[in-house]
Order: sequence, then C-alpha cells, then structure tokens
Amino acid sequence: MRELLAYAAAHVVDVYLTPDGARAHADILAGASVAGAGVYECTDEIVALMADAQHPQGVLAVARAIDVPLEQALADVGAGFVVVLSNVRDPGNAGTVIRAADAFGAAAVLISDASVDVYNPKVMRSSVGSAFHVPITIGVSTSEAIDACRAAGLRVLAADGGSSTALPDVDLTVPHAWVMGNEAWGLAPELREQCDDVVAVPIAGHAESLNLAMAASVCLHTSAQARRL
Amino acid sequence: MRELLAYAAAHVVDVYLTPDGARAHADILAGASVAGAGVYECTDEIVALMADAQHPQGVLAVARAIDVPLEQALADVGAGFVVVLSNVRDPGNAGTVIRAADAFGAAAVLISDASVDVYNPKVMRSSVGSAFHVPITIGVSTSEAIDACRAAGLRVLAADGGSSTALPDVDLTVPHAWVMGNEAWGLAPELREQCDDVVAVPIAGHAESLNLAMAASVCLHTSAQARRL
Repeated sequence: MRELLAYAAAHVVDVYLTPDGARAHADILAGASVAGAGVYECTDEIVALMADAQHPQGVLAVARAIDVPLEQALADVGAGFVVVLSNVRDPGNAGTVIRAADAFGAAAVLISDASVDVYNPKVMRSSVGSAFHVPITIGVSTSEAIDACRAAGLRVLAADGGSSTALPDVDLTVPHAWVMGNEAWGLAPELREQCDDVVAVPIAGHAESLNLAMAASVCLHTSAQARRL
Repeated sequence: MRELLAYAAAHVVDVYLTPDGARAHADILAGASVAGAGVYECTDEIVALMADAQHPQGVLAVARAIDVPLEQALADVGAGFVVVLSNVRDPGNAGTVIRAADAFGAAAVLISDASVDVYNPKVMRSSVGSAFHVPITIGVSTSEAIDACRAAGLRVLAADGGSSTALPDVDLTVPHAWVMGNEAWGLAPELREQCDDVVAVPIAGHAESLNLAMAASVCLHTSAQARRL
C-alpha cells in the first residue's frame, strides 16, 4: 500500500481504514489525502470482506489498473533488458519474478495472456510492492511480445534448462529480453524457435532443474551484473 | 522416490505400492527389490493415510534418516562450499535452498536446530530429490556450525541484504560457507558477527530485498561460477 502510494499515487481511487488501521498507518492516511483519494473509515468486517487476506491489516485501497501499453513498456529499455512471462500460472511465481525483475533493474515485465492475472492478490502480495515499481504489460500473446521485443532492437533469449547454450556464454551487455515459460512444461517449442537463443543455467550437482523463481533470479542477476561491468 | 532409491538405496526399509502404483512405477518396484527393501502391496486408502499428500501417487517408502554427522558433512568440501541454514522455518524455503545447494554443487547443507524439520514432507517435496543428493546435517546450532566450518578451513559468509559488502566484491574461489538466516528477520546480530564477512546481493531497482530462495539461488550460483572460472 505504501508502495502503491509512493509509486502509483495517481492510480489510487479510494482508501478504506478501520479505526485501528488508521491509528497504525497514519502515513498511509496522510499519503491517501495527498494523492487526492477518497478516504473512508469502516469496520473490521468490511475490510475483511474486501481484503481477501487471512489477516487483513485494517487498511485497503481501490486503485485503477497499473498496466501500461506494450509500446510504452518497450520505450525505455535502453541498454537494459525486459522479462516476458509466458503461461506462468502460479501467482506466487509470477509475483516473485516481478520482484526479481525489479530487484535486478529490468525495464519492464510483459505478461502473456495465458498467464495468471497480475491483479490476483497473491501476485501483488508476492511481488512485495515491485508490481508498482516496474512497468507491467498484460494481455499480449507471447508471440506478439517476442515480435515487439525484437522490433524494439532486443535480443530475445528463452530460459530453458534443456538448452546446450550456457548462461555464462551469452552476451548480456546488449539490450535483451528474457522469456520465461510455464513452471511445469517450460516454453512451447514454436515459441522457443521464435527466440534468438535458448539459454540454460548450468547445473553442477545431481539436481535435474531449477524452479522458475530460482532460474529467473539467476538469469536476471546475471543480466544486472553484465550491465554493471 | 526414484532419487531415494538411486542415491540412498541403503536407507530404504520398506516400499508400499497400490496395484495401480505397482503398474505405473515398475522401475521403483524393481529398484526396491534390488535395494533389499520389503515390498508390500496395499490399498489406495492405506497409501493415502500414510502419504500426507493431497494426491498420493500409489507408492510410498519408509526410509531411515539420511542426515550425516557434522564432521562427515565437512570432510569433502575441498575447494568448494557448504550452506548453513539458520532458523529457516518455511518448509518450502528449506527444500528450495537444498535444491539450489544441489544444483550449484554445494558439498553439504547444515541445518540449524531451530530450523524446520528436514524430514517434513514439504521440505522433501520442494527439494525435488535434492535432499537425497547432497549430504545434510541436522541438529547443530548455527554457532556450532559456523565454528566447525571455520575449523575446517572455510571462510564463513553471512548473506544479508543490509550489508555494504557486495557479492561481486567477495572472493568465492576460496573454500567457503554461506550462512542463510530466517526468511523474515535474517540472521541474529551475534551470529552475523561470528561470520568472517556479511555479504549483500546488489539490488538495482526499487525492490527492498530478495526472498530467501532468490538470495540463495543468486549466491550459490555465483559460488558455482567462481569455481568454474
């Protein structure tokens, strides 16, 4: 909520607080007033009904959608990188990848139309505010997102543990897009082929694979490192 | 189960299969016989009662504990690294860190006595077999684990997002131990001080932090990279 008010205040329509919530979160109350949002005091029951959380914190905002058009998401990539989520179904995974995209300085996250709804409260919670920090585009197909990335001058890299191209061998100093597939079955073959390269994080032990959040953390951290050097 | 039979067959005592399970997992049936385990056919209800899973797969093993003594875990580190989990409470996190330790070639995982039980089925499931690949020690205090690592010649590194020492500035070509703290409150100050250095993964965006699985994936991958170069 603090992140929403700090990074997307213009999107906030209304803020609802219980008496306890208003006392505990005076900064949010003040921020909502500054943002010009409607501020309403209500009961614990109302917040609990609206909040879809097991332990609501006595404060809740209604905000307009934060997603941006595809062209806008790709306008400021510069020498950086973006992340494309293709058919990612688990809200915790999607939120964690958005958090990693933010932490490692991605310019945008493009979420394919077959992925989990980014406005799912579990996506928002597991992004820990990062969904308000990094521009997010929704409702594009993966194929359309790949084409748009390439048209914007990005090298398009599919992350896939089965590839023979290893992460350390890939040039991440050029503008690029990481395409991350479904947590169980990865990226469809025709989408892998549409990418410029398919890249695997090298595995040293007997483990068969990394999960999506692990692979995204490692790939995006490596991209951040390449930009820093 | 395949991983248990492949990597710790001597620990398997009994295998229970439903008729469907025996048909679907003939290789497990064969592996259990080779391992000298008792093999019992039973009903779906029995497996469901024993399995503690929402969708049991018709096959279940009873195995002896796989953990090893501290000295044994630290005997073969060589030029590599180990992972110490201190007060990690979430079974999914513990299992994912074990999976990362395996994937990035850690010599062992030491789990402090205030952490989640490694034999919790959720730890086992989220390790996806890695708990059988990498030696695990349980029941030591974090302080004892740090002392033992240092006595074994390892440089002891605490992972903490608040540190001013950045991951790229740390020499990971020497034998070392990564100490990972609790998912919410990190590592206790007295334990941080007991380590040789406290290391942060650099954050590029507006994100405040990484979660434990993200931080562990990045740190252990970087250790694996340092060994490879």
